[in-house]
Amino acid sequence: MRDLRIQPDRLWDSLMEMAQFGATPRGGCNRQALTDEDKLGRDLFIGWCRAVGCAVRVDEIGNIFCRREGAQSELPPVLIGSHLDTQPTGGRFDGVYGVLAGLEVLRTLDENGVETRRAVEVVSWTNEEGARFPPALMGSGVWSGVFDLQEIYRTRDRTGAAVGDELERIGFKGKTPATPMPIEAAFEVHIEQGPILEQDGLQIGVVTGVQGIRWYDVIIEGEACHAGPTPMEHRRDPFTALAPIIQESYGLATRFAPWSRVTFGDIRAIPGSRNTVPEKLLVHVDMRHADADVLEEMGALLRQTVARECDARGLASEVDERWHMPVTQFDPDCIEAVRQATRRLGYGAMEMVSGAGHDSVYVAGVAPTTMIFVPCENGVSHNEAESAKPEDLEAGANVLLHAVMQMAS
Amino acid sequence: MRDLRIQPDRLWDSLMEMAQFGATPRGGCNRQALTDEDKLGRDLFIGWCRAVGCAVRVDEIGNIFCRREGAQSELPPVLIGSHLDTQPTGGRFDGVYGVLAGLEVLRTLDENGVETRRAVEVVSWTNEEGARFPPALMGSGVWSGVFDLQEIYRTRDRTGAAVGDELERIGFKGKTPATPMPIEAAFEVHIEQGPILEQDGLQIGVVTGVQGIRWYDVIIEGEACHAGPTPMEHRRDPFTALAPIIQESYGLATRFAPWSRVTFGDIRAIPGSRNTVPEKLLVHVDMRHADADVLEEMGALLRQTVARECDARGLASEVDERWHMPVTQFDPDCIEAVRQATRRLGYGAMEMVSGAGHDSVYVAGVAPTTMIFVPCENGVSHNEAESAKPEDLEAGANVLLHAVMQMAS
Repeated sequence: MRDLRIQPDRLWDSLMEMAQFGATPRGGCNRQALTDEDKLGRDLFIGWCRAVGCAVRVDEIGNIFCRREGAQSELPPVLIGSHLDTQPTGGRFDGVYGVLAGLEVLRTLDENGVETRRAVEVVSWTNEEGARFPPALMGSGVWSGVFDLQEIYRTRDRTGAAVGDELERIGFKGKTPATPMPIEAAFEVHIEQGPILEQDGLQIGVVTGVQGIRWYDVIIEGEACHAGPTPMEHRRDPFTALAPIIQESYGLATRFAPWSRVTFGDIRAIPGSRNTVPEKLLVHVDMRHADADVLEEMGALLRQTVARECDARGLASEVDERWHMPVTQFDPDCIEAVRQATRRLGYGAMEMVSGAGHDSVYVAGVAPTTMIFVPCENGVSHNEAESAKPEDLEAGANVLLHAVMQMAS
Repeated sequence: MRDLRIQPDRLWDSLMEMAQFGATPRGGCNRQALTDEDKLGRDLFIGWCRAVGCAVRVDEIGNIFCRREGAQSELPPVLIGSHLDTQPTGGRFDGVYGVLAGLEVLRTLDENGVETRRAVEVVSWTNEEGARFPPALMGSGVWSGVFDLQEIYRTRDRTGAAVGDELERIGFKGKTPATPMPIEAAFEVHIEQGPILEQDGLQIGVVTGVQGIRWYDVIIEGEACHAGPTPMEHRRDPFTALAPIIQESYGLATRFAPWSRVTFGDIRAIPGSRNTVPEKLLVHVDMRHADADVLEEMGALLRQTVARECDARGLASEVDERWHMPVTQFDPDCIEAVRQATRRLGYGAMEMVSGAGHDSVYVAGVAPTTMIFVPCENGVSHNEAESAKPEDLEAGANVLLHAVMQMAS
């Protein structure tokens, strides 16, 4: 059992075969949820699962569960999952790797005649990306009870096609209720989508949680006036407050490093004319942290900064929280299983926090869960240039195999 | 002669009568160039001029010249002028006041039987605002040789209508060549469009020149990345350079006060997504100063600042000058005539520099020219709320009358 390893070439070949569906000229993938390409990918995956003797069930939101029975199949199973859908200009690894590494675990157990105590299931969650149909994390969100199934069925893409109809069209509106069964442990292996592992020369990220996210609209209001005749000291110019707000916000990222993020993603000046002082600036701020209390403190300090800098200049201001995702702490036993597997296999590793959301965030709400990261080239993802080394993908799948075997035993 | 004064009620009534053409529900005017409303305004003005015995000529670009002969009409005349067109949500005074104050001068000379040595002409320039047909200052620009007549004829509005056709349609494509005749002195009285006179409790601004303007595109280029997984220290985030660039630019305005202006009119983040560090920021900067050398220095210092702050952060940058208007110094003799008239009439006055462009900028290129400013409420213009006090409009017209009489004698 301790010597068990996945077959790296087979894993790589499966990834490349899957990548043909929706392949883009620049070497990426466009396999958005519930398209014809998505259907082809799903069918390929199901065929592979059946080939190793798995039972396949599809639930009401199209999540595909492939089950390999264990010695005591009445016990809650161990779950492995990620997603097969991609961004419009996506890569070949984001999500797909997590599903096909799960498949590779099933194949490895099968060819070695390993009987686990618990059943092992591999799930492909529907529409993780949310690129065609918002919201993201749709399949895991419906399944875990965060989203309402009927409401999600009515969600339409830009052409007016609805999720419910498209599920039916591609033959993946299943009968199994989209609700969680009891689960012993859940694992998701994924490319890091950041540069940390690569830079540190490590193969495995032991993921202890996911950063919480808060999205703010910062509105700075002054008074529009003519860029010529109005003396500087008569102006109420929103840009005068913007500079210190930017600087203090980045200061918060430094103060609460290393698991803090502050991003100014967009900005708009209204009316936005070359020779007019804008009456209003609208700034989008994305704040993230691995610690819920710290994230809340960062938000409070942002509010204080905006109010102080605007008040001092006779400007009105508002800070509206538009959305948030709570901090996720992964399950200590699952993390420990990953830690031990990594140590046993001898891979260089570090503990880290995910900066992006994943299906595991919703799975963690109903079952003990964790994630495993592997490096990707230059930290690039959501991009056709997304790439990962075969030996790193191999390492991640082996850690997954051993963590699953431990939790299933 | 020294006791001669304009009739304030008649001036006010003329302004209000003109304001009926294109009147907006909120008390402003929408009388854009070469529209039916513009035609009605032009006809009204011409009727008034003819009523005081003036000869009217219309040139090829639709500028209307109304001439009151002098004792020695072979000498170069004194010119008074401004414009009758407005912004889409414009006011009742911007431009119109300058034309009708000129008319009021003609009426006052007429009813008092004053014979000037030189002829006096009042001109209404076509399309000063440039709101319907860019560029602004169209009529004075063609006349002074800055713009090519045939090219301007082909300029189209958003509906595809061309300047040449629209001039023809409203009957104002004149036969007189649009080229300058010899002129002794030119005056334009205008609302200040800024708050300085009102704030200082003064009625007359003796305008010594017009600030030069330089429009820059500042481009800051970094690298797009995900707002979550990418550590702060791995980012090349254009916003990090924006803050010091804003602050140093405002510092230039302070350093070269009081006739300096720095305006950030618009900004765009590309791609502009909440959870992505932008790869690029495009910032529009408007710089103005009354001294050409200083304005050039401000531009050079902006370039230095952008390069330094971006280099220090591994960001690429560009500063492109998109347009400029040179500094205009008005004619010392014309200024002195305004100064003396103001003193003689006892109005509170200050010397000032215009921060906005006016037809007089182009007129000054071919004739001795100056301007007279009067206060407007809260410095507001290009706005339906634009307003001015009758007694200030009276003061400006009286100064105009006396300055014109001096230069025409």
